[in-house]
Amino acid sequence: MSKISWRPGTQVYPIPAVIVTCGDTPQNWNMLTIAWTGTICSDPPMCYISVRPERASYPQIVKNMEYTINLTTKDMAFATDWVGVRSGKDFNKWEKTGLTPLPGEKVASPTILESPLSIECRVKEIMKLGTHDMFISDVLNVRVDSRFLDPETGKFEMEKADLIAYSHGFYHELGAAIGKFGFSVKKRR
Amino acid sequence: MSKISWRPGTQVYPIPAVIVTCGDTPQNWNMLTIAWTGTICSDPPMCYISVRPERASYPQIVKNMEYTINLTTKDMAFATDWVGVRSGKDFNKWEKTGLTPLPGEKVASPTILESPLSIECRVKEIMKLGTHDMFISDVLNVRVDSRFLDPETGKFEMEKADLIAYSHGFYHELGAAIGKFGFSVKKRR
Repeated sequence: MSKISWRPGTQVYPIPAVIVTCGDTPQNWNMLTIAWTGTICSDPPMCYISVRPERASYPQIVKNMEYTINLTTKDMAFATDWVGVRSGKDFNKWEKTGLTPLPGEKVASPTILESPLSIECRVKEIMKLGTHDMFISDVLNVRVDSRFLDPETGKFEMEKADLIAYSHGFYHELGAAIGKFGFSVKKRR
Repeated sequence: MSKISWRPGTQVYPIPAVIVTCGDTPQNWNMLTIAWTGTICSDPPMCYISVRPERASYPQIVKNMEYTINLTTKDMAFATDWVGVRSGKDFNKWEKTGLTPLPGEKVASPTILESPLSIECRVKEIMKLGTHDMFISDVLNVRVDSRFLDPETGKFEMEKADLIAYSHGFYHELGAAIGKFGFSVKKRR
């Protein structure tokens, strides 16, 4: 085993590949796929997306200062890739993907019905970093597919949702669970 | 299928579970596990980590304004969890995990030999958000395990590294590849 210096680059993996929805009326609702996203604070719950200003959705997000992050699944992998490669300037992405928009609850941007979990966000600050602008955001609401809520415990069973991960150019299924947070210090019974 | 409002929370998944190393001398080298991390800009390559000020590594990172992100694998899953649950105030984490520190190249913080890919970072700005401070950082260097470099193409074969993902409280293996970025628009031959 040995480590060699390679080159500076964007190598934090695996990461989500989410579909971000935006727009404030059904006529301008659009979507884009983003992997530069994550949680930045637990309380208050905050997250970010980084977006190239050239993307068709960028002016919408800046104008409304709102967007929705929709987690993606194995069934949505083809649409997730397509939405990331194509532009809303050239296509009506809702028609082409068959994904279903629901009106937002706490934001004007729509939620994708087929996504198991959608996060409604309000932008607090935009940081210009280079190719990408980072949208520092508050989480206003989380909307979940009720099929994945355990009726007894009320827990969201994300492990049943078949989420996908993105790693170094490839979309992957999530594989077997190795352990739960804290498993390394759990006493054996 | 239907969507119900649940509650605001930190639900961007799956995400990485990385071991961040810090410190500027072998005597104070420490590590902590972090899932609030990701890429925020492609060019210049930039990433972030969000850290609670209570964590033992926090003052080191603030003092040196440097740290290293080490991607984690199935073989490292137990250590990854343990490093996240225990504190460097109570344990020498290198001894307890058996992970091997290599001196940094572009930063003073060490690199974990066993990690397939390590990212040396310099902090540009610290944002106080609430429970967590976000460290906005430049990527100075990426160091890779040469076993995963294809000798002919020079490409880093991350898919062979058995990376793990973290999703809603569980560590997961990365499962099967579904497709490569752009697969939805590739012409069939």
